[in-house]
Amino acid sequence: MSSLSSASFVLSDASTASIVESEQVHGALADDIRGLVDVAIRTQVSPDVVAEAQELVRQAARILAEDADDAPAGVHFNAEGRSWNWGNAVVGIRNAIAPPVVLQWGEDGIVRSEVDLGVAYEGPPGCVHGGVSALILDHLMGETASAAHTRLTVTGTLTLRYEQPIPLGRVRMQAQITEEVGRKVTVTAQISAANSDEPGIKAQGLFIIPSWATQGSVPSGVGSLD
Amino acid sequence: MSSLSSASFVLSDASTASIVESEQVHGALADDIRGLVDVAIRTQVSPDVVAEAQELVRQAARILAEDADDAPAGVHFNAEGRSWNWGNAVVGIRNAIAPPVVLQWGEDGIVRSEVDLGVAYEGPPGCVHGGVSALILDHLMGETASAAHTRLTVTGTLTLRYEQPIPLGRVRMQAQITEEVGRKVTVTAQISAANSDEPGIKAQGLFIIPSWATQGSVPSGVGSLD
Repeated sequence: MSSLSSASFVLSDASTASIVESEQVHGALADDIRGLVDVAIRTQVSPDVVAEAQELVRQAARILAEDADDAPAGVHFNAEGRSWNWGNAVVGIRNAIAPPVVLQWGEDGIVRSEVDLGVAYEGPPGCVHGGVSALILDHLMGETASAAHTRLTVTGTLTLRYEQPIPLGRVRMQAQITEEVGRKVTVTAQISAANSDEPGIKAQGLFIIPSWATQGSVPSGVGSLD
Repeated sequence: MSSLSSASFVLSDASTASIVESEQVHGALADDIRGLVDVAIRTQVSPDVVAEAQELVRQAARILAEDADDAPAGVHFNAEGRSWNWGNAVVGIRNAIAPPVVLQWGEDGIVRSEVDLGVAYEGPPGCVHGGVSALILDHLMGETASAAHTRLTVTGTLTLRYEQPIPLGRVRMQAQITEEVGRKVTVTAQISAANSDEPGIKAQGLFIIPSWATQGSVPSGVGSLD
């Protein structure tokens, strides 16, 4: 089995400026792939037109594969305190599976986010998949437990109470730390349709600061281990 | 807010044979898009090569958009008892976000699945995002509660206990009904690396058979409302 330690995070000599530039280039590609994922679900074109599109997709993948890592993107950081996790399934800039979620760290201690969940996030007819809500809540809550990336946390337990279905479209979520005892951090959160005050799901999570992460050996800015 | 009822499911006059044929065509496209999502995370090509790939992706999306629905894929069924949910975030044949998961219904009452989770499902460095495990467990458990699609269920509560990180790669999961009282169905499940006997996450869920789904009005074969 895999185990995590402070060595799981890669110190990079890339400047923050070069990382921002790279994120613009690859973020734009990921955005276009998100559009492709979406329309591939909705399309009604004939099989020969599908084949035509498929050949273009393969060509694009071949070009990108000409020089590519085998390894996952991982989590990197530099000496300027910038970190990046481009492959992350919720926030990864390069990952077309990620909506991507962007977090707003409030001065009131509440971490908020709004994001559009389109047809690729469907579960019940016309509604957000309950597991997709679990996915993004898990991430939001882990980041919240990390106290704005000042410490590392891992998920201990997560409990989700499904109140009502959330229609596909814009959703709103928020999370906050409600208790903290030693290395145990409790976070509560909820997600709803952006235009509704009634939560679709209420969640509570227990997050742990691993003992190996309390030795001062963890790079700042790396944040939650979701 | 959205609400669900038996009217959420669309009766189609498409034959099962035509659905199978369509799934082959669009499933192949979704597979190629999955490959594209994966390599877009790993690629190291220069910005001008990225731009070239991006143009191909846009062209593919334009072609597919020439005739496309606005609506999400939804859940359809036909008179032969076949159902399909092509946009589903976990099992959707047309959805490049879905791994997709394929379930094995055991005669022992255990529902099993194995699936490869590549670099697009990353959370902690080199590991499956905890929320991705939650996403696919939620779906697996909901389908399990539906007793091989003989009834409809919705998620009530879901509790996940994170035991250890699961490395990216092949994962194995299983679920079974452990209690049933009235309209409440309890399901327990776990997910682990395919080559490990130690669970990465243990889960328990309470699933509800909605009152509107106990009137015999729900099409058979539709299954869980995840």
